[in-house]
Amino acid sequence: MELFPVPDVPEVREGDDLAALVSERVDLRPDDVVCVASTVVSKAEGRFADLDDFPAGPRARELAARLAELTGDEKDPRFAQAVLEESVDLVMSEPFLLTETRFGHVGVNAGIDRSNVPDHDLLLLPTRPSESAERIRTGVEADRVVVTDTCGRPFRHGQRGVAIGWAGLNASRDWRGEADRDGRELGVTVESVVDELAAAANLVQGEGDGGTPVVVVRGFEWGDHGESDAHFRDIDGDFVRQALREWRYDP
Amino acid sequence: MELFPVPDVPEVREGDDLAALVSERVDLRPDDVVCVASTVVSKAEGRFADLDDFPAGPRARELAARLAELTGDEKDPRFAQAVLEESVDLVMSEPFLLTETRFGHVGVNAGIDRSNVPDHDLLLLPTRPSESAERIRTGVEADRVVVTDTCGRPFRHGQRGVAIGWAGLNASRDWRGEADRDGRELGVTVESVVDELAAAANLVQGEGDGGTPVVVVRGFEWGDHGESDAHFRDIDGDFVRQALREWRYDP
Repeated sequence: MELFPVPDVPEVREGDDLAALVSERVDLRPDDVVCVASTVVSKAEGRFADLDDFPAGPRARELAARLAELTGDEKDPRFAQAVLEESVDLVMSEPFLLTETRFGHVGVNAGIDRSNVPDHDLLLLPTRPSESAERIRTGVEADRVVVTDTCGRPFRHGQRGVAIGWAGLNASRDWRGEADRDGRELGVTVESVVDELAAAANLVQGEGDGGTPVVVVRGFEWGDHGESDAHFRDIDGDFVRQALREWRYDP
Repeated sequence: MELFPVPDVPEVREGDDLAALVSERVDLRPDDVVCVASTVVSKAEGRFADLDDFPAGPRARELAARLAELTGDEKDPRFAQAVLEESVDLVMSEPFLLTETRFGHVGVNAGIDRSNVPDHDLLLLPTRPSESAERIRTGVEADRVVVTDTCGRPFRHGQRGVAIGWAGLNASRDWRGEADRDGRELGVTVESVVDELAAAANLVQGEGDGGTPVVVVRGFEWGDHGESDAHFRDIDGDFVRQALREWRYDP
């Protein structure tokens, strides 16, 4: 399996055809997986915004005031409003905003980016990243596309690449019912392939001005295994989310 | 960047020299990262155990009885005892046991494996996986070694590869203070490189009888970036862990 960046991708602007930008720069094969950073998907889709687009309502003002009190930093209530408008559920409100986006991803500040945005205050995540992935897929020779982002996690420091959208492959390999070398049924059952592809791509993508937003994974073989397209958990089976709902931050 | 499995690794037995097993099968280069599944590290280190090694105390009997009640399946109190003895903290006891191992990793059942174990009931995680990684590193031509495992996570279905030990590299790349293309300071700051390497390797490792426990990552470039060796979070900054401590499962 091989990973390489698509070279010389220019600054992406609203309306740019990402599939064409990629296809012009690399010869893709049908079984390649094209991993595209959500930032460039958002830019191509014109998901720029300004704080003035989000006049703060009472809830946003209350959240921002509380966060300012906790952190000692000023917090713009318009930013809190933007987070609320990009979300369907507030998973945690202190000491930072962790929300569920409309497409099911749980992330800090609804994944809204305040860097990498020329001429605007904010870059919102793509509205429906799996549909974005599908649109890119139809325009490239590769059959598989993953839209990547980075986010943190409990128990471990740092962020790692995750998939927020995908097309042409299912989210997970399902090993249930398969046997180990000794014929016992496997304990580990469902492997989140799209997240592992995103994590691998992030090793090559990098961040910032040396970053390369599109990485090709060549030679990834699914193998003769089951598949599952479930990716984002429902709160019913997510005990961490249930626990966070009841928890109150104690500074 | 390229990933390939080390071919034809035989069933690993206690006392086997993993560095030699790898070196005999592949020509490594100094900047390769050798990713070794914790199962074979545990086997080489003789971390096999039997349920009879763990006579259950009152706490284990109580935990097993409660889990049996909740799940409707019989639970062996000796297994609960093994989990307790492999752990320094019980993060969550219902509806499954989530614990912190002695080396800081938070995982279900202290990462004890009940498959892939010939002639024994259990395979425990390596005692100090970063020391295991260092031992392997001294015996191979490659300068970097990661001991991998798989585990689940909140908000997203499935498991993905994670690092539980590493040697010859730091855990994370630190992008703090670096600028994006527009000169703004980066929002995303610390990238868990060892976890991303483990996730990438897991795409190639696979599970079960077709699995290849050792994968080489060739051509990963750290680049000119900061480093941090912090990997496992302390509970102080881990709000999920704090929330789980207070939470009670409501069946």
